[in-house]
Amino acid sequence: MSQSRDAILKAYHGYLACLNARDWAALPRFVTTDVIRNGAPLGLTGYRALLEGDVRAIPDLAFEPSHLVCDPPLIAARLVFDCTPVGMLMGLPVNGRRVRFTENVLYEYRDGRIAQVWSVIDRTALEAQL
Amino acid sequence: MSQSRDAILKAYHGYLACLNARDWAALPRFVTTDVIRNGAPLGLTGYRALLEGDVRAIPDLAFEPSHLVCDPPLIAARLVFDCTPVGMLMGLPVNGRRVRFTENVLYEYRDGRIAQVWSVIDRTALEAQL
Repeated sequence: MSQSRDAILKAYHGYLACLNARDWAALPRFVTTDVIRNGAPLGLTGYRALLEGDVRAIPDLAFEPSHLVCDPPLIAARLVFDCTPVGMLMGLPVNGRRVRFTENVLYEYRDGRIAQVWSVIDRTALEAQL
Repeated sequence: MSQSRDAILKAYHGYLACLNARDWAALPRFVTTDVIRNGAPLGLTGYRALLEGDVRAIPDLAFEPSHLVCDPPLIAARLVFDCTPVGMLMGLPVNGRRVRFTENVLYEYRDGRIAQVWSVIDRTALEAQL
């Protein structure tokens, strides 16, 4: 599968649309079965469980990049979340408050799908809003 | 000044070498006078003060990218820090312990210099080591 800049950008937009539609059945089109996140070999099952947990904690979670940086086989994104987590989030009692925080995340693509993820979420910014 | 991928990569490596050498006098070659960091218009003076503060807190701070993603005018980096902060760091009492944490950071280049920075540091990983 193509790993050109355009192909990776298209695949990444498809991945975000998949998450925003909660279309978990389609996730294997966008993520490899042996995906690794922040060094942890979650695999597709573990990665899907992580995403499902995020959406349970944040029912109105929308994945919207403010910036994309694509340099095959890598792509980096800055994601800006404007949402209302229902209970605890990253150990913090958000409890339905509306919060805004960011994630800077890098991905490595292999054969058109996400094989590795390196994510940092701005928990400090979240904490400052509580 | 060139904003090609190679030119930005070269300028970014120069910027990291400048930081690692604590060569603050050279910083204007790498950073615009009106630099903005995470939405704050620090300017070169404020940005230099921030970096000098980081180095006071972490005398052995070394800026080493594990991944670079260059897509002009943007470049993203994952920086891995393996260091011994002397006192408090990001509100946490590190007090000379050796810690390892990461930063995912995006930069926008303008005329060969850094004009905007969007940084997220993994404070949670740091906290988990204390």
